[in-house]
Amino acid sequence: MRVLRVAAAQVGGIQSTERREQVVERLLALLEQAAADHCRLVVFPELTLTTFFPRTFYGDQADVDAWFETAVPGPETAPLFVAARRLGVAFHLGYAELVRQEGRVRRYNTAILTDETGAIVGKYRKIHLPGHARRLPDAPFQHLEKRYFDVGDLGFRVWEALGGTMGMCICNDRRWPETWRVLGLQGAEMVVLGYNTPEENIHYREPPHLRMFSHRLSIQAGAYQNATWVVAAAKSGLEDGHRLIAGSAIVSPTGEIVAEASTEGDELVIHDCDLDFGADLRRTMFDFARHRRPEHYGLITSAASYRPSTFQDG
Amino acid sequence: MRVLRVAAAQVGGIQSTERREQVVERLLALLEQAAADHCRLVVFPELTLTTFFPRTFYGDQADVDAWFETAVPGPETAPLFVAARRLGVAFHLGYAELVRQEGRVRRYNTAILTDETGAIVGKYRKIHLPGHARRLPDAPFQHLEKRYFDVGDLGFRVWEALGGTMGMCICNDRRWPETWRVLGLQGAEMVVLGYNTPEENIHYREPPHLRMFSHRLSIQAGAYQNATWVVAAAKSGLEDGHRLIAGSAIVSPTGEIVAEASTEGDELVIHDCDLDFGADLRRTMFDFARHRRPEHYGLITSAASYRPSTFQDG
Repeated sequence: MRVLRVAAAQVGGIQSTERREQVVERLLALLEQAAADHCRLVVFPELTLTTFFPRTFYGDQADVDAWFETAVPGPETAPLFVAARRLGVAFHLGYAELVRQEGRVRRYNTAILTDETGAIVGKYRKIHLPGHARRLPDAPFQHLEKRYFDVGDLGFRVWEALGGTMGMCICNDRRWPETWRVLGLQGAEMVVLGYNTPEENIHYREPPHLRMFSHRLSIQAGAYQNATWVVAAAKSGLEDGHRLIAGSAIVSPTGEIVAEASTEGDELVIHDCDLDFGADLRRTMFDFARHRRPEHYGLITSAASYRPSTFQDG
Repeated sequence: MRVLRVAAAQVGGIQSTERREQVVERLLALLEQAAADHCRLVVFPELTLTTFFPRTFYGDQADVDAWFETAVPGPETAPLFVAARRLGVAFHLGYAELVRQEGRVRRYNTAILTDETGAIVGKYRKIHLPGHARRLPDAPFQHLEKRYFDVGDLGFRVWEALGGTMGMCICNDRRWPETWRVLGLQGAEMVVLGYNTPEENIHYREPPHLRMFSHRLSIQAGAYQNATWVVAAAKSGLEDGHRLIAGSAIVSPTGEIVAEASTEGDELVIHDCDLDFGADLRRTMFDFARHRRPEHYGLITSAASYRPSTFQDG
């Protein structure tokens, strides 16, 4: 048994009018509460520090960049790192990252993982950016991740931390089995992720319950098919008048949801995760070395698609 | 709307003492019933014609080969093809196939798909063979697919038939997301499969309910992540004293189970499947051309595993 007590820290809606300092106060309260409950890892959502700004079209890039961090820890986020060190609690945090690379400004949808001293041990930049790049004039709101972010350049990686092999992904990545498999092939025992998932589908009439259903299905399948724990934290509830689904959850390597949020607000979802729990499954059903047949998987890496896109995008 | 009324034809346990002719009589009854219910496609299980013989160790290869077909249609199976033609119903059938290739005898876990005239339009040979190759002396029963079958040599393919793009896989293939993705990349609108899934896990103490749970999770995830219909037919119930799970089901491209067996015996599970139903999902969330990032999927095809197997097998 290698038990890691972990908390998915669901964060209720963050309004445009909330300052970073106010948000960090809420996160600190969750971190303190998790430490009091003897958690060793707290998983915060994607883009934890701000409203989900890709729902809004901004004509002026400066208005977009105002939602980005140029350094983490920075003045507003440093208290999180200080508290993590003081409390001995690791954390995962998603934020919009603005960085200068080879003389060019790049913008990523980023997440970090710290150890129990608050030191950053891993960084991930979102690879599967959903939505669209061009403003949709008739949509009730936008989903402009393809406009505001660059595709992540760090790949899907794992890190030895917290007594196990830890992986990260972000939001829409969870719907793509390739995400889980690349992490699983590297031996991930726990994958942590945050998400911001609008309840409403802006592209076609989809029953709202399917948003929660496909969220659960995606994380459960990813867990089972790679025999890994999954810890998924939502930013949820009403945010600037738009609803994000909740459903923060911890999924065992069998694919079962073992703990789930019961509210749409700030809430800790806690479970004692035995990192050895997936070992039987990895030794038998999902013994990759004996059972996988990469010679028949060629299409998966040879092209993005064998159908042209029919979506009108910029 | 391109509606295809399809039946998953669940087949209750087939005892070792049942002759092929008796089994085919049962299949003909299901085919007749499906035709009366205006179905255009009937999906029979994996290894439909016999008991699930890989649960037994045979020292004499002739005892294994007795479960194989050397020709389909053959004397015992020809009535199925005649009935399909007379009734105007296509069918999918799994069977053990013994074939001579380049001077060597090969044995495959095979399935075929016919059109509505009973003509074979596609053949698939199982790629993900589960279980083990060497007899497990302490196991309550065996799972010797790796001993009795060769790995399928036809890849994962789709066929234009029945007004849509049809794919096939078999049993354990459904637990591997690569199966679904290779079919999805080729535009599969419906994937049909049969399975024989023991209720008991011979490798470690697994709660029996998880067998049904992971079956459902696998076909639901495969459907959703590739926006395809899935029609899954079980051989189920007591067979030579061992129980196979039932749960034959039809899954829509949203991942929802829209019809499911209510018994462990011979039963038709019927649904009107609109082959256009996945189009919205394929145009938006799962528009592969815009969203997939194969440059980050390299590990999936570069090796079967990055961990050595710890399973003792021959």
